[in-house]
Amino acid sequence: MGTRTAEVMAAIRARVASRALASGDRLPSIRTFAAVMDVSPSTVVEAYDRLAAEGLIRARPGSGFYVSTIAPPLTLAETGPKLDRALDPFWVSRQSLDADPAVAKPGCGWLPADWMPNDALRRAVRRLARADDAVLADYGATRGPLALRRLLSRRFAGEGLEAGPDQILLTGSGTQAIDLICRFLVRPGDAVLVDDPSYFNFQALLRAHQATIVGVPYTPAGPDVERFVEAATVHRPRLYITNSALHNPTGATLSPQTAHRLLNAAAAHDMTIVEDDIFADFEPEPSPRLAALDGLSRVIRIGSFSKTLSASIRCGYIAARPDWIEALIDLQVATSFGGVSPVAAELVLAALSDGSYRKHLEALRRRLARARRDTAASLRMLGISPWLLPRGGFYLWCGLPDGRDAAAVARAALRENVLLAPGDVFSVSQTATGFMRFNVAQMSDARIFAVLERVLRASEREASAQAGGSLRAAR
Amino acid sequence: MGTRTAEVMAAIRARVASRALASGDRLPSIRTFAAVMDVSPSTVVEAYDRLAAEGLIRARPGSGFYVSTIAPPLTLAETGPKLDRALDPFWVSRQSLDADPAVAKPGCGWLPADWMPNDALRRAVRRLARADDAVLADYGATRGPLALRRLLSRRFAGEGLEAGPDQILLTGSGTQAIDLICRFLVRPGDAVLVDDPSYFNFQALLRAHQATIVGVPYTPAGPDVERFVEAATVHRPRLYITNSALHNPTGATLSPQTAHRLLNAAAAHDMTIVEDDIFADFEPEPSPRLAALDGLSRVIRIGSFSKTLSASIRCGYIAARPDWIEALIDLQVATSFGGVSPVAAELVLAALSDGSYRKHLEALRRRLARARRDTAASLRMLGISPWLLPRGGFYLWCGLPDGRDAAAVARAALRENVLLAPGDVFSVSQTATGFMRFNVAQMSDARIFAVLERVLRASEREASAQAGGSLRAAR
Repeated sequence: MGTRTAEVMAAIRARVASRALASGDRLPSIRTFAAVMDVSPSTVVEAYDRLAAEGLIRARPGSGFYVSTIAPPLTLAETGPKLDRALDPFWVSRQSLDADPAVAKPGCGWLPADWMPNDALRRAVRRLARADDAVLADYGATRGPLALRRLLSRRFAGEGLEAGPDQILLTGSGTQAIDLICRFLVRPGDAVLVDDPSYFNFQALLRAHQATIVGVPYTPAGPDVERFVEAATVHRPRLYITNSALHNPTGATLSPQTAHRLLNAAAAHDMTIVEDDIFADFEPEPSPRLAALDGLSRVIRIGSFSKTLSASIRCGYIAARPDWIEALIDLQVATSFGGVSPVAAELVLAALSDGSYRKHLEALRRRLARARRDTAASLRMLGISPWLLPRGGFYLWCGLPDGRDAAAVARAALRENVLLAPGDVFSVSQTATGFMRFNVAQMSDARIFAVLERVLRASEREASAQAGGSLRAAR
Repeated sequence: MGTRTAEVMAAIRARVASRALASGDRLPSIRTFAAVMDVSPSTVVEAYDRLAAEGLIRARPGSGFYVSTIAPPLTLAETGPKLDRALDPFWVSRQSLDADPAVAKPGCGWLPADWMPNDALRRAVRRLARADDAVLADYGATRGPLALRRLLSRRFAGEGLEAGPDQILLTGSGTQAIDLICRFLVRPGDAVLVDDPSYFNFQALLRAHQATIVGVPYTPAGPDVERFVEAATVHRPRLYITNSALHNPTGATLSPQTAHRLLNAAAAHDMTIVEDDIFADFEPEPSPRLAALDGLSRVIRIGSFSKTLSASIRCGYIAARPDWIEALIDLQVATSFGGVSPVAAELVLAALSDGSYRKHLEALRRRLARARRDTAASLRMLGISPWLLPRGGFYLWCGLPDGRDAAAVARAALRENVLLAPGDVFSVSQTATGFMRFNVAQMSDARIFAVLERVLRASEREASAQAGGSLRAAR
């Protein structure tokens, strides 16, 4: 297809996207649009025919072309900026969820199954086999079972966050918790702030809500507050989504000063904050929380048990203002009928209440501390440097040796059955090209380091060959 | 608050809703708008102050009022037409999900827990306790476990529907399946057809997507095809959502002729059909299915196991075109990370594969046939007449004795701890005021009929008293 045809197609697509041409409208005549675009009529004919084949427009014989009355389906992988598929936020998710067992997954976002409290889970399952018929067969209450909400309420009180069981809504997962909040607060085109870098699925989720995603540069003490205020002023965002403790992907912790200034900035710009606390149980000691500082006035706390208990037993939660919880319940009933599965809530409650859970967490923290230290040392041997050494959790956010393109490295490694998480999938501004997120719990296989070394060496040769090529071309 | 103030507020709200006044725009000055609305300036001041208190607009001192840059949250119970709360689609859902155990629930949409295959469920749970760590602790594949998709694929083949395991996507519930499809295909303002009457949560879900909901009158053989074509022509809908077999709330079955004509109409108007097959296992023998006739070209099949297996173990499915499944996977990853819980899928698979499941279904069908017959007889004694006698399932769609308002009857019954489902919650056009949906499996308690009789008698007295009152008033 010629460039001119593509330009004509792009011009029509832009007019449809901006609603300058609405559903059912007649397109400009071939002759008119050829003059507008300064192309030949045959180019416009080809462009219109191709758009008709795609379904965006339709020909009515003897009358011209019309915008189809049916909007094209929302395909997320294409609605964001044009990215190489390896840099798409879905790439890492789908590759890691659907990976063959032969693939090592230092790029994934969870612990290996044998690091999880499986004995406690099995005890919870055996207990479930003796539960009432209603637990096994019935729908649950709209907020989720009271016993689990009470337990969460007590845990929150322990960190200074007052939230009664009625202020807690159990959901199908942590992601579903944020999704419900977005349904409630975010309309297409609304601006939403996220950290840059931040968890890639925040971007995917916000694309599904057709939000305008604005990145705020992240520092080792939290988001850069000046840039946060700047973004708030320019974009008037509806929402800011963040992890305060053990931030994904950097492992950083929000400082008290940053937390205080952030909350003031959010208040000045009338912004809601979603604090995703999914990594809380990995912390060696508690760190500042926006929800606790704010008292759930403009902060919504969400979380889940996928990282420390089970990702198979799906359960998330929202703690928020009572009037918001009411509206969120309606939304959850409308869009998934029940919220959390009562069976799942029962298993989570039993496992969390199991005497062994606290010990499991302590052992897990020690094990992860060792894994972070050892992995950091091994990565440094390859010239890969952690941006900081996190206080807890399983992520290391690392700079690659100079000039290396993390996406190219990730693609090459996947050919050798090692799944990596290249920096730009976390970066709204696409400025983390030289970074990579490593999951230290998924790196016990020495093969991973061998592949990394080989792939980095090859990318070095490629980089210098390309530099040589450009030099030659420049001569 | 005066009527004039309310009118001014409504006028501003309408301008904001239609974007005639966009986010950040300055409102007309007090003086100007008082002239426009033909009211006193103080009325406009009061209206603006009230709107500012609600957060829709904001005052900037010395500069006037501006539309808040933050859209109001989406509260579903208010976004539909103004309805009495008893007629709100959420009323029945929330009342029945959160009902006190003392409340009898002939209005709810599920079987009592002790009618479910609890022995098979317990066997499945005990088996789960011996599963691999990965099943208990890990995320699952994006489509859901292959074994369950294979089983569904074989079941579909048995009814003449070809859908390989890759064309099947497991979801968190049947409602989530439809929700994902709406995210994929429906944009705010798009028209969607539903049967009138139809399952009330279709309306709730479509409100969450801000779709325009268009009802098509339902006949004992399926939707009225002429009215369907009329609605398709006028509203150019994106989607039609229906139950073909054992339609909710009527229990009717789609006839082969209606199915064929519907598909042709959908093709002529380039419409997608979602066929919700959740009641399939209650059918004594198979009836026509749009998905089978169409071969999953423009029909999407969805379903779940909540009605015949367990509503606690959440699992739904989508069978659709392969390219659509790919896009739906991205949407599901973005909005709930994993799809179905692997633990839930394992339990469903084990229970469906249990030798006892088929026998359970046979016994259940016989038990329901008796309950339908007995309940219909008891209801007729109270002057309540089934619209038709369904071939299967647990619903009876009934006309109340003449002139009775089902919503008033439902409100009165709830005061006596009996939850009913009044007709208009199912009706987009609000023309089922004299109808009620009864769940025959939830009516073994004789108290229900006593309450019904009492409440009907009281509403009769009320109706005649009102008639008398109007007569007196007219004199």
